[in-house]
Amino acid sequence: MRTERRTQLIEITDLVREAVGDPNGASAALVYVPHTTAGVAINERIDPALVDDLENAFQKVVSDEWEWKHDDVDGPNAPSHARASLASSPQVLIPLRDGRLGLGTYQGIFFCEFDGPRDRKVYVTTLS
Amino acid sequence: MRTERRTQLIEITDLVREAVGDPNGASAALVYVPHTTAGVAINERIDPALVDDLENAFQKVVSDEWEWKHDDVDGPNAPSHARASLASSPQVLIPLRDGRLGLGTYQGIFFCEFDGPRDRKVYVTTLS
Amino acid sequence: MRTERRTQLIEITDLVREAVGDPNGASAALVYVPHTTAGVAINERIDPALVDDLENAFQKVVSDEWEWKHDDVDGPNAPSHARASLASSPQVLIPLRDGRLGLGTYQGIFFCEFDGPRDRKVYVTTLS
Repeated sequence: MRTERRTQLIEITDLVREAVGDPNGASAALVYVPHTTAGVAINERIDPALVDDLENAFQKVVSDEWEWKHDDVDGPNAPSHARASLASSPQVLIPLRDGRLGLGTYQGIFFCEFDGPRDRKVYVTTLS
Repeated sequence: MRTERRTQLIEITDLVREAVGDPNGASAALVYVPHTTAGVAINERIDPALVDDLENAFQKVVSDEWEWKHDDVDGPNAPSHARASLASSPQVLIPLRDGRLGLGTYQGIFFCEFDGPRDRKVYVTTLS
Repeated sequence: MRTERRTQLIEITDLVREAVGDPNGASAALVYVPHTTAGVAINERIDPALVDDLENAFQKVVSDEWEWKHDDVDGPNAPSHARASLASSPQVLIPLRDGRLGLGTYQGIFFCEFDGPRDRKVYVTTLS
């Protein structure tokens, strides 16, 4: 997956659904992000204005203005690392109910980019 | 479950324990919240003053005063959505040890309401 | 495990790897912290300066200066409890891929102490 902006939420519900396929009696689907400046979150999938609000809130909760020391090959992106842990999670686990993702009516799964643009991947695993 | 206040932590440890019942060799219990303005957290179940402190902290970390755009059928509740993702999680997964929830001595499971009062539900699933 | 400072991230990737051992076809490893003023997070395991930055960010996001009421046998450590829920999580679930932890190249697993120094433990469970 290719992200386009520094902080960007991208809905991946359909991609997760496809990756799960026929769950064949599995109990839950694990969505895992193997990156240190990105994560995953579940929130309302309906309103694009809310996605903007969440992107802003996720940026605001960790300020670029705080004092940061980390500066490696990717540049000084410590706030991106902190946001990945504070604003999102490396993983969500969603129960499977009647062979389908047990998401609530308004819930969507969002990939959370905090240091884009970048090429990213997500692992989806089913558990019994 | 019925919540009563806008931001409210309600201990659900006993409800989760009941829902798990005899885990019959299962390895972990998944507690999942299918809402976008609520979540779940684990913290100390002893002191009501701490529950007040956590409710205040969870509200403070995302300010109502930030600029928000989302305003749908439920009204302008974007901070509630942001708190659900920033202050809690849609899910916790607790290991089962000797047939019981492997919670620490002081740990309780809390439903976290960020847009109450509302009727809410929680899914509990055991994994093998 | 013994922690040394009030807020301290300690990498436990190797300990988790050892505890998992030969996963024998298991699908995921659950890392669970049974404490209410500590948690677990996944972030970059390379740069010690980033670990300092994360410790500072995790402290800053919840301020000691906010008004707190909780004051039990351990003293007034409500900010430590709030940080455990806001800055980390009681658990992470990591997929097992080809019999190994499916961590990204730069990812490490960190125990997050928010009320040290203390003696702490972590449970590792594999799921099928």
